[in-house]
Amino acid sequence: MKERRMSLGLDFGTNSVRTLLVDVTDGQEMATAVHEYETGQDGIILDPADSQLARQNPEDYLKGLEISIKAVLSAAKKADKDFQATQIIGIGVDTTGSTPIPVDRKGTPLCFAQEFKDNPNAYAWLWKDHTSHAEAAMITELAAKEHPEYLAKCGGIYSSEWFFSKIFHCLQTDSKVFDAAFTWVECADYIPAILTGTHHPERIKRSRCAAGHKAMFNEGWGGLPARGFLAKLDPKLGALRSRLYEKSYTSDVLAGRLTKDWAEKLGLPPGIPVAVGAFDAHLGAVGSGVAPCRLVKIIGTSTCDIAIWPNDESLADIPGLCGIVDGSVLPGYFGLEAGQSAVGDIFNWLVNYIQPGGKEKGSHEAMTQEAAKIKPGQSGLLALDWNNGNRTILVDQRLTGLLLGQALHTKPEEIYRALIEATAFGALTIINRFEEYGVKISEVINCGGIAEKNPLIMQIYADVLSREMKITRSAQTCALGSAIAGSVVAGKNVGGYGNFTEAQKAMCGLKKTSFKPDVEKNKVYRELYRLYSQVHDAFGRKDWSGTLYNVMKDLLNIRESQTKEK
Amino acid sequence: MKERRMSLGLDFGTNSVRTLLVDVTDGQEMATAVHEYETGQDGIILDPADSQLARQNPEDYLKGLEISIKAVLSAAKKADKDFQATQIIGIGVDTTGSTPIPVDRKGTPLCFAQEFKDNPNAYAWLWKDHTSHAEAAMITELAAKEHPEYLAKCGGIYSSEWFFSKIFHCLQTDSKVFDAAFTWVECADYIPAILTGTHHPERIKRSRCAAGHKAMFNEGWGGLPARGFLAKLDPKLGALRSRLYEKSYTSDVLAGRLTKDWAEKLGLPPGIPVAVGAFDAHLGAVGSGVAPCRLVKIIGTSTCDIAIWPNDESLADIPGLCGIVDGSVLPGYFGLEAGQSAVGDIFNWLVNYIQPGGKEKGSHEAMTQEAAKIKPGQSGLLALDWNNGNRTILVDQRLTGLLLGQALHTKPEEIYRALIEATAFGALTIINRFEEYGVKISEVINCGGIAEKNPLIMQIYADVLSREMKITRSAQTCALGSAIAGSVVAGKNVGGYGNFTEAQKAMCGLKKTSFKPDVEKNKVYRELYRLYSQVHDAFGRKDWSGTLYNVMKDLLNIRESQTKEK
Repeated sequence: MKERRMSLGLDFGTNSVRTLLVDVTDGQEMATAVHEYETGQDGIILDPADSQLARQNPEDYLKGLEISIKAVLSAAKKADKDFQATQIIGIGVDTTGSTPIPVDRKGTPLCFAQEFKDNPNAYAWLWKDHTSHAEAAMITELAAKEHPEYLAKCGGIYSSEWFFSKIFHCLQTDSKVFDAAFTWVECADYIPAILTGTHHPERIKRSRCAAGHKAMFNEGWGGLPARGFLAKLDPKLGALRSRLYEKSYTSDVLAGRLTKDWAEKLGLPPGIPVAVGAFDAHLGAVGSGVAPCRLVKIIGTSTCDIAIWPNDESLADIPGLCGIVDGSVLPGYFGLEAGQSAVGDIFNWLVNYIQPGGKEKGSHEAMTQEAAKIKPGQSGLLALDWNNGNRTILVDQRLTGLLLGQALHTKPEEIYRALIEATAFGALTIINRFEEYGVKISEVINCGGIAEKNPLIMQIYADVLSREMKITRSAQTCALGSAIAGSVVAGKNVGGYGNFTEAQKAMCGLKKTSFKPDVEKNKVYRELYRLYSQVHDAFGRKDWSGTLYNVMKDLLNIRESQTKEK
Repeated sequence: MKERRMSLGLDFGTNSVRTLLVDVTDGQEMATAVHEYETGQDGIILDPADSQLARQNPEDYLKGLEISIKAVLSAAKKADKDFQATQIIGIGVDTTGSTPIPVDRKGTPLCFAQEFKDNPNAYAWLWKDHTSHAEAAMITELAAKEHPEYLAKCGGIYSSEWFFSKIFHCLQTDSKVFDAAFTWVECADYIPAILTGTHHPERIKRSRCAAGHKAMFNEGWGGLPARGFLAKLDPKLGALRSRLYEKSYTSDVLAGRLTKDWAEKLGLPPGIPVAVGAFDAHLGAVGSGVAPCRLVKIIGTSTCDIAIWPNDESLADIPGLCGIVDGSVLPGYFGLEAGQSAVGDIFNWLVNYIQPGGKEKGSHEAMTQEAAKIKPGQSGLLALDWNNGNRTILVDQRLTGLLLGQALHTKPEEIYRALIEATAFGALTIINRFEEYGVKISEVINCGGIAEKNPLIMQIYADVLSREMKITRSAQTCALGSAIAGSVVAGKNVGGYGNFTEAQKAMCGLKKTSFKPDVEKNKVYRELYRLYSQVHDAFGRKDWSGTLYNVMKDLLNIRESQTKEK
């Protein structure tokens, strides 16, 4: 019997870290462990006075790393007495992003210093932090004028969720933290660097995925945006440029090898290869078997849609996409990222905040059961999926939810279904945009908790998108994708793989059950989608005739002035 | 000691009938009794297959009449041992409307016949029945072309809630009932006729209020719409014209005197004068002390706004008003009626249908308590008050509710407050329209359950409308207005009054507590109202640039086709 070869996939999510131990031969999942972050509310540091703020404690990452890897090893031992930690040939890491951390000259997060421990700005700026919208607008404006090429690859608008918006906001609002930061490191860079002892700012290998999608990095124009460009926003931002990075790396590149200290702490042999990090969605797409014409949808609290396209074929800039980055998903392919700022979170809002009928009556299960009895269009409701803004197509965080069609007998399950449909219409808008620009989408592979657990949602998606919905075999595609990266950096010699495509072929799979579109329902949904598009454009597009573009923004402005006032 | 003189006010509402015994000297309320209708859901016959249908059983009216009058007499006796039924000098009646009943040649409701007892079309067509929107549109279209003057007095659009829409719908969908009906009688005509034995179609005195506001009756063009006009809609409708009526009467006119039969049944002396009926809102305005420049808002499940203007002064037609009818409120004045199709019903929807947090947590009291802590604009929410259509300004039942600005943490009490504010914005839109056309509104008198019980709503109304909100002393202004009508038809000789103004002066009053506008809050509400108006116009006005006018209607069309399909 051949010795088994394993890879460890680490997946740092919004509320927890998951570690997955995978057999590299066939993708079989040997053991998994999850550790919930401890700081703040569900691992997120919030500010009651500013609902847009969302930070995280890097200490939670380190603690989660240790606890979850140890738990996986012990679970693996229990499951298979022949298991040995020496069978682990590689480690891969994915994280949320853009989640930049201000660090000192040694690469230590500022928040670890006594001086900053009570200052949220010194912590990790979680992807969904929206405090930096004013700075995002300034970056977009300047780039549109002086470097439109910077925007062309990220959908025409630089988002408040991204790297430079957050750093610039820190500069403008908390110069103490900004000045103390030697550089800023993405969470996806920080974890592999910590494991391999390469976290010193001069040694750390930066993720292509993070650099390209969130920091306007492109080899075509010499890496990050020009110093002069950043300096025009603020001279201090220009000066930071040389303390950031010149190069970025795809996840088939070695970040380094597991240090002796961490190996001891974790109970692993030292020297295990660790891949350069990437974002959860991108490695999730890898773990889902992403390929040309095959869109991967990772559906959770928010949604990430990932497609790829050969980098030797011409590809137009696609307006409204979060990003087109060579090598961000698979080396040799453009990675195309789109997404919806909230999907599961919108359903969670109804269930957890509105709690229709009380906690028991209003559970996801109860709502789903009742919503399944309703026909398309039967409720008379139409919703927009913008409770957390619009990430793709409009790229505008300053949009909000909308529900219309309520009568005097409208029931919660009708609203629940309308919200599901709204997210499906949002998903269709993205696919349509891909196809308009030549990126054909013939298959949709779904993964994430919602794809797993809610057949109603998948059926509605099939009916709205008019495409078969397939589900990944693995419930942990992000961690699986990380493990695949681990198997690639391990290399053929030790039983790993020469490239991602080979590794995917061996390690990815689909569930037997899939969801096929119903032609009659699709007909009704086409009509509803026409109305969705009309409302979408009216509230979301500045250039739309008789636009209502100002309405949601004015409300947010009023809200902010009323919240700040004493 | 002078012998006391009383008047009985009967108020036939949507779910129950209330009888009030009032001292005509000072308006003191001696006793009151309520009887809930027994048929259907809360007294309303519904159709699960058609949410627009709402009918009532006239049997409930007769039963309610008897039970509630007897109960009042017995309560009065208990309260005051000197009370004698002979002290009652008059009876007045108000009802909902337009609530027409198809009756046979003898004036008996068709539903009392065995043949029709299972057919909802043979019952009373309750004011809020919306089955007749197609017919309303046809009537509006024909009138706009051939008799624009018919529409000019009722806001430019003939409503699906009104007399001829309902009769025409019956004609088009149930010819058996239409053919069997000798004539159609408003509930407001039916009750006084029954009490006085004048219900034979040739004897019944029709209410000016009902005729003018709901049936396009105007002495200027010879009463009801021309036979030729009705015949163009359908020859049978033209033929019906001569079986309707030629004259109509204000409520200072005697409908007749209490019959011996009813007097015996009720325990009253026979011959008591009974006033011609009118609608609840109009007599409610009388009971609230309506006067020029003094708007009365009757706030309940829906809202009625009543103003008056001297009929010897010039008054322009006011587009979007439900009606301008000479004598519909007070003789000698134009009665101006406006209103919102749902107010309390919208709050009830959230509390009863969505039940946020469960039944206990989501009560009106709990919602109000939490909503009171929120500042104007602080929730970021904006709503339209159209869950039951828009009765005034747009005069369009095929509009629906809208809520926008939801984020991922939006709470039920924020929605509750946004819905209150939406109804306040709707109220402001009406006042602005009055004033644009020269009907100055310097005072607002509120009555109805909500004005009584919810200070938060009254304060928000004061802040939004930028006017002091006053509350009527009586909680039963409709019944009080009816009693005032009773005191007027009784006449001076028996201790009653020579006219309404004298009676109002003696019998009406205000509460000490009133609600004054807060200048700072009004400032924020002005900004929010600008946004409300923008969304109002976008979804409600066909002529608005980049209109979304089609959206709610298309959704209703899709809804209807999906509801009807098997």
